[in-house]
Amino acid sequence: MDKTFYFDNAATTFPKPDKVYSEMDSFSRHFGVSFGRGQHRLSSKASVVADETRELLLELLHCSNKKVVFTHTATEAINTILCGINYPSGSFVYVSPFEHNAVTRTLHFLSEKYGFFIELLSVNKSDYSFNLDKIKEQFDAKKPHCVVVSHASNVIGTVAPITDIFTLSKKYNAINIADMCQTAGLIDTNISSEIFDFVVFAGHKTLYGPLGVSGFISPFKIDIPPLIYGGTGIESANQNMPDDIPIKYEAGSHNTVAIAGLNASLKWLLDIGIDAIRKKEIENTERLLRLLNHYDNIKVYKPAGIENNIGVVSCVFDNYSSDNIGNVLSEKNIAVRSGLHCAPFAHKFIGTFPAGTVRFSVSYFNDDADFEELEEVLDYIESNS
Amino acid sequence: MDKTFYFDNAATTFPKPDKVYSEMDSFSRHFGVSFGRGQHRLSSKASVVADETRELLLELLHCSNKKVVFTHTATEAINTILCGINYPSGSFVYVSPFEHNAVTRTLHFLSEKYGFFIELLSVNKSDYSFNLDKIKEQFDAKKPHCVVVSHASNVIGTVAPITDIFTLSKKYNAINIADMCQTAGLIDTNISSEIFDFVVFAGHKTLYGPLGVSGFISPFKIDIPPLIYGGTGIESANQNMPDDIPIKYEAGSHNTVAIAGLNASLKWLLDIGIDAIRKKEIENTERLLRLLNHYDNIKVYKPAGIENNIGVVSCVFDNYSSDNIGNVLSEKNIAVRSGLHCAPFAHKFIGTFPAGTVRFSVSYFNDDADFEELEEVLDYIESNS
Repeated sequence: MDKTFYFDNAATTFPKPDKVYSEMDSFSRHFGVSFGRGQHRLSSKASVVADETRELLLELLHCSNKKVVFTHTATEAINTILCGINYPSGSFVYVSPFEHNAVTRTLHFLSEKYGFFIELLSVNKSDYSFNLDKIKEQFDAKKPHCVVVSHASNVIGTVAPITDIFTLSKKYNAINIADMCQTAGLIDTNISSEIFDFVVFAGHKTLYGPLGVSGFISPFKIDIPPLIYGGTGIESANQNMPDDIPIKYEAGSHNTVAIAGLNASLKWLLDIGIDAIRKKEIENTERLLRLLNHYDNIKVYKPAGIENNIGVVSCVFDNYSSDNIGNVLSEKNIAVRSGLHCAPFAHKFIGTFPAGTVRFSVSYFNDDADFEELEEVLDYIESNS
Repeated sequence: MDKTFYFDNAATTFPKPDKVYSEMDSFSRHFGVSFGRGQHRLSSKASVVADETRELLLELLHCSNKKVVFTHTATEAINTILCGINYPSGSFVYVSPFEHNAVTRTLHFLSEKYGFFIELLSVNKSDYSFNLDKIKEQFDAKKPHCVVVSHASNVIGTVAPITDIFTLSKKYNAINIADMCQTAGLIDTNISSEIFDFVVFAGHKTLYGPLGVSGFISPFKIDIPPLIYGGTGIESANQNMPDDIPIKYEAGSHNTVAIAGLNASLKWLLDIGIDAIRKKEIENTERLLRLLNHYDNIKVYKPAGIENNIGVVSCVFDNYSSDNIGNVLSEKNIAVRSGLHCAPFAHKFIGTFPAGTVRFSVSYFNDDADFEELEEVLDYIESNS
């Protein structure tokens, strides 16, 4: 099959380290059963791999004081947390202007049910930086009950100062939730502090694992009920869910094959080192930006300062809709994502709503061939513009 | 690695057809992205595979008039349905005595929230057959709002006459839900009739697919809200979930690798033919029963009549607890599951609560070596009994 020149890593990183594929295949063939569902050695092996994977995640995020719950998607993790919180009527839930529909659609549903208000954290329009002074004023005026922040925007890549924001909001006793789907394993972050009540990760994005395993990390000081009820392999006579964490939130047969893949990707990540991966990703981002900035028919939406950014770049093209450009690129085997990227408020904020942008997103694995092919196609679009 | 002699197929069928492993590996390496998340050809290929897999499921269950929703686990599917239904206070929800905790824990939680009553469908203690006359009397006395039936028990393998039960309950306008986790792809069943409001399947059990993909099939005449809110790749500006089915219930990045595996297993199933698979499974069940019945120290809990049974057999052993036997078998590389099998009410019904049973469950793939090894170990247990 022809190579796909892949610039859609913010959706799913692709390819994965080869070890991820080989471990998944080997695990499927030799141990492909669920954990906690039998005392035989296949199930025991699945348990060992799952527990080790939890440890690797805690190591990566420097938080051995916390616990990992596996879900099947980050969306399920976000729903478990947001649907589990108590919201007093009239309370204030703050979100960044860059939240994904996994957050905003869930909060929209919950705000109608519980009667709380959703407020946008103050961000400077000029450079997309968070305005901490204004955020403090916002919190003073309307006490935060809960704060949800995407660590990095999946539309423009800007990195939020989550530690600063959460330190502020914790003074008001807010429940803090970080969505690290675009940053876990990419931006070295210590989440051991209890200002981080819940941190969500997506196995298949910057962690370079497979689809089918995500989750959240928490000290579990805030008690939330499960989103999903069912078999746990323990305390089966109890018709309430067991209190044990993570089991309380892991009803049903877990996808141990995906967990084995994530196990392999985490070992790969920790072996190369998060700083080396970030360095390579920054190189690829700078190369992408140099290329895009070269064309007069392309407008790039990108905050200044590579250190406050990840490799996600949104653009609009003169004379063509973003979907048109997405289709032209697709025909040339260049994978991007055009439109609203499940984050309509981010587009409202940067002024590209409702038509959206063409989003290019790089990973550790983009190579010369990708950029050379992209340049050729951008030349072609410019010449027809 | 030494071979595991695998008799835990009711938890997860193992092994899978080789094509399932090879397709998953190939899909991961060449197309491993989600569907509906980009117009490029990797995402398009993922969409094509997902849509084809839905068609294969509808073909297998003879219900091209219905639609398939993918979830990550059957537990998630059951929660989506049960949490989505409206329950008038004081109404009656009927379940079989053999329901899994995915059903009973969820209903326990919901009954406390909504104030409905949970009733057990009448089953004869002598042969575990459903008593349709008495069930009719039950429905006359207490009108069924909703009826949930496991098509086959995951503890003793007895098959419920779901079409008869649902025909009866539909006369009272009940919402009918069949849990076909242990029978889809094994017992040829036509679910095209609208008496089947919701049918749940588990990809990794009798469908011989991988962990990580399950779901439900429905004509969607009964409107239920989603359990999980989030990005759908369409209508992103809409802060409500789109009304499109299945998208409304499929927020987040779906596990296309698992779906590709299920696609391969369904093609394998349809190629061999469901009757041929059932025939082989019955042969293996009869062989297992002959073997177990040979020992005086083993009491077998099994309804009469192989045609009303699947290959799931529960036993207790003289002088040893079920967990003890499970451990002895495990040491000899024989995989079974001992205890309550996430179905405490089934054990209450057959009289093996709270100690549970040793459960042996066969698939299409059990071979001579499995049975010969099992015989050797059962001889050893008998001689030490």
